[in-house]
Amino acid sequence: METKTLIHSGAAKEMSYTERYNVAPLIPLPEYLFHRLFQLNCRTVFGVANYSTAKLYQAIAASGIQWIQTINQLNTSFAVDAYGRAIGVSCYVTSESAELGHVNGFFGSFCEYVPILQVVVLEQSHDLERLIGDVSIFHDVVDDPSEIDSCVRTLFWGKRPVYMGLRSKDATKLVPSSSLNGNIADKMGIKNTFFQTDTIKRVIDKIIAEVYASSRPLIVVDALIDRYNYNSTIQNFLTETGIPFVTTLMSKGSIDESLPNFVGTFLGTMSQPIVREYMNNADCTLILGCMIENFKNSYCRFNYKSKNQILLWNDRVKIENNIIPDILLHELLPQLIASLDTTKIVNSRPVTIPNMIPRVEPQPVTFLRQEYLWFKMSTWLKQGDVIISESGTSAIGLLQQKFPDNTRLVSQAIWNSSGYSIGACLGILAAYRDMGTLDKHRIILMVGDGSLQFTFQELSTILTHGFKPYIFVINNQGYTVDRTLNREKTHLNATYFDIQPWELLKLPSLFYSQEYFKRRCMSVGELNSLLSDKEFNKSDQLKIVELILPSMDVPVLLDPRDDSSDDESSPQHKRPRT
Amino acid sequence: METKTLIHSGAAKEMSYTERYNVAPLIPLPEYLFHRLFQLNCRTVFGVANYSTAKLYQAIAASGIQWIQTINQLNTSFAVDAYGRAIGVSCYVTSESAELGHVNGFFGSFCEYVPILQVVVLEQSHDLERLIGDVSIFHDVVDDPSEIDSCVRTLFWGKRPVYMGLRSKDATKLVPSSSLNGNIADKMGIKNTFFQTDTIKRVIDKIIAEVYASSRPLIVVDALIDRYNYNSTIQNFLTETGIPFVTTLMSKGSIDESLPNFVGTFLGTMSQPIVREYMNNADCTLILGCMIENFKNSYCRFNYKSKNQILLWNDRVKIENNIIPDILLHELLPQLIASLDTTKIVNSRPVTIPNMIPRVEPQPVTFLRQEYLWFKMSTWLKQGDVIISESGTSAIGLLQQKFPDNTRLVSQAIWNSSGYSIGACLGILAAYRDMGTLDKHRIILMVGDGSLQFTFQELSTILTHGFKPYIFVINNQGYTVDRTLNREKTHLNATYFDIQPWELLKLPSLFYSQEYFKRRCMSVGELNSLLSDKEFNKSDQLKIVELILPSMDVPVLLDPRDDSSDDESSPQHKRPRT
Repeated sequence: METKTLIHSGAAKEMSYTERYNVAPLIPLPEYLFHRLFQLNCRTVFGVANYSTAKLYQAIAASGIQWIQTINQLNTSFAVDAYGRAIGVSCYVTSESAELGHVNGFFGSFCEYVPILQVVVLEQSHDLERLIGDVSIFHDVVDDPSEIDSCVRTLFWGKRPVYMGLRSKDATKLVPSSSLNGNIADKMGIKNTFFQTDTIKRVIDKIIAEVYASSRPLIVVDALIDRYNYNSTIQNFLTETGIPFVTTLMSKGSIDESLPNFVGTFLGTMSQPIVREYMNNADCTLILGCMIENFKNSYCRFNYKSKNQILLWNDRVKIENNIIPDILLHELLPQLIASLDTTKIVNSRPVTIPNMIPRVEPQPVTFLRQEYLWFKMSTWLKQGDVIISESGTSAIGLLQQKFPDNTRLVSQAIWNSSGYSIGACLGILAAYRDMGTLDKHRIILMVGDGSLQFTFQELSTILTHGFKPYIFVINNQGYTVDRTLNREKTHLNATYFDIQPWELLKLPSLFYSQEYFKRRCMSVGELNSLLSDKEFNKSDQLKIVELILPSMDVPVLLDPRDDSSDDESSPQHKRPRT
Repeated sequence: METKTLIHSGAAKEMSYTERYNVAPLIPLPEYLFHRLFQLNCRTVFGVANYSTAKLYQAIAASGIQWIQTINQLNTSFAVDAYGRAIGVSCYVTSESAELGHVNGFFGSFCEYVPILQVVVLEQSHDLERLIGDVSIFHDVVDDPSEIDSCVRTLFWGKRPVYMGLRSKDATKLVPSSSLNGNIADKMGIKNTFFQTDTIKRVIDKIIAEVYASSRPLIVVDALIDRYNYNSTIQNFLTETGIPFVTTLMSKGSIDESLPNFVGTFLGTMSQPIVREYMNNADCTLILGCMIENFKNSYCRFNYKSKNQILLWNDRVKIENNIIPDILLHELLPQLIASLDTTKIVNSRPVTIPNMIPRVEPQPVTFLRQEYLWFKMSTWLKQGDVIISESGTSAIGLLQQKFPDNTRLVSQAIWNSSGYSIGACLGILAAYRDMGTLDKHRIILMVGDGSLQFTFQELSTILTHGFKPYIFVINNQGYTVDRTLNREKTHLNATYFDIQPWELLKLPSLFYSQEYFKRRCMSVGELNSLLSDKEFNKSDQLKIVELILPSMDVPVLLDPRDDSSDDESSPQHKRPRT
């Protein structure tokens, strides 16, 4: 995530921010806000146009930020979430009458630690503050630069949603721009900053002792490592120490998987056997940047069971089942890494990961099935790819595969809103455009037919901006995950889980898209020839591919008959028939 | 709304409900709930299929209720709202992970007094109760028949959303069915039932005295008359007394507009001059079934200014600026009507409404404009039509026209969510199907291009169920209302208010719809020939019509240069140039 560290500090260089960007001494209050976001590399603000949001357009433009007009509020909330994951800060603008449309996405961003700023133009009252006060780390109706700075600093360091009310009448209120020359990324004045030097030192000593004493240590790199942009720090540390490590459902792709000590991705009850084995047998498990310790949804239970766990959250540490509060990750982690003497760490077990390859290469005329699909897709992926995925069958199948280095996965793994990936795809495209690296990355959307229908209209926005992602739609004629899980309770072909059939390949033509690549694949041979097709591998146009899969085919390890979550036996019996 | 009064009472007829429908003595708890809804004429339950909702499908089917699978939760919330307006009770089923998607619609139903029941299958916690407790009249986690009865009775009599949690483990819990033979529509055991006989008598005497003393009385029939199903009572009363009356933004179409004492529809600052004149000059204004007294949005201010107002709310009366609480509309209204001696009421002024017709019949080659469009559409409407409309330019233009008798308008006038009409169209189609009268009504959707894009995917569900509505899409290349209102602040052609162009007439083909009628109209002649086209006037297939209008053309009276809300001068100067 290239630009996260490029913080425009007013103090740096010879010229101040206001000099460099020729900012007038007095500017409208909203413009002050958008300059602050610009300084944190936010270059796009999202929203649906209306009477109230229109009052901020001039301020947005004046700060050098672009506006992306989305089609509805749910999609806005998904786009801005993904943009925030990539850039480190993001923002949408809404009105009192429209803000409820974002609630679902807002809750999701809170749950998954994404720093999004909701700016509401207040014409009258301010009711929703009550409603979402519990799922934002800060909420305030701002009316001067210092209040704006509090909000933005809390957003930047807290990595969770902030709710900002801005009175309509203040849209034209002039404020001094001089504070813009102070560094918005410093930690002064933010909530929850503690300098518990002694406590941190004691915690570090304790962790170090545990790691040194361990004969089978294991590191779990979880999602907050990425949120706080410690990926390369941790990657260097892992390279140097050789300690076996896993990523998680939420952090897949954040560390290069070609490292020899990469074990796999921990998917809770859906993990590969080797991952389970490492998790169960470690005698010291260090969970870095822990986002969540324990959750379950309809098809997966995710919790850490290993003995002697040390969990580093964003704001606390859990060790020997005691919680030490008020230890901030960004205070602790650099010191911990610096203090560890890698020569004292035992790493007795080299990792060998069995490849998830099909036992038999299927014939070209064979119908496409999940097992082959995900294997084959993983061979097509290349360095720099960014994959946006739903949490249905598409995510599970992908997560089980090994990624090339520098391949990122964007997925709302915990909150798991249907339709997230379409809005998120727009957000990621905008983020890489804003970072200036869109030509170096393929942006790949993997979505099921059901999820696509939830929010597909944002494809229109994607096309309007001239973006050219790869779109793979998995059409398995229904909500397969739910159908599978209800196998015994309802009839296999219960129409409840049917998805209304759409002519998926026609979708882009609806938006006056003149030229795009489309292809339907039902067989192994069709997929193979698609992936080696020259046209398909050029980046000149949008591609949409419909992958037809049998209705009751599910990825390996997602089989409802398998209730033995911690079972470490051979994976063979869990594979679907090929 | 034919079936609202056909309440299946267990006490009626010779057989009890359980005998007639062969209900087992012990049934699962959710089945008990759905039988109760069935007894109140609810024949369809809406929702998005998932793991949790699937636990209720058998109970839904066993009660004789159908399931309509919508595409996303926002659309569910709109469909169920419209179904509730038509039938008097409606319900959707959701899960903890999905319920936030309905919040926007749920708030809207609360705001506009629509009795919807949200059933949440609880797997774990029950957080959202806190969140929406303030916008539901009752919320409870039910675990026996009596609790279900409390919820359903409150829903039926309170005419506002009720939130019901149902624990996943109780989906199979057996309960006696015998209470189903008690009448669910009686008022026993509901919250807020008061029997203030004396107070009611005093209030009635006071109202009667005011009405008798008035020399220029006026009646406003507002939306709660329809919600409580007093339309025909009030219509008879108006016919008999001849008192001039108006309907409102929220109640348009609930009383036949051919009555000689119909003045027009009160649209606040957008009202026709004759309506303003009657409202301003009345010396006693009786507002029956008042839903809201005062609101404004970006293009309209709605408030009652006449002297000597008497407001009858659902649960209170306001008279001489005093509020008398705890007077229920359904207790008060029948007694009031019965007590009024119509011979003592003065009605000195016959009503003559100027027709809103174009001053000059335009040439066929003329571009279509709002003024002609809405006039011409009103001549095409016929008795029995049900029009579902957004609150953008489409609603305003329509509301200014006189409707044929028994023509209903379904519109979310106050809450005003973009995209409401598409989901609502599905709800209305299901409701008329369930009442068995779909062949007697044309269901007509009027929607702008921007609003359509919000939620258009529900057209897929409409087609899946074989429904054949008329769909008119007003394409004026942008959010015209917002563009107009921001005329001075932003550039006229500001791209912020552009709508991404879609090939609208292709939409149904996306859903494998083989045959449908499509037409684009840009000129007066094209509209005229469409409306007299034989194919177009047959009911055998879905019709979609794209009406191209100039970007800055707005309906008469919606002109931002007109700030003189109470100005009673000639309407001529406010007409757009033709």
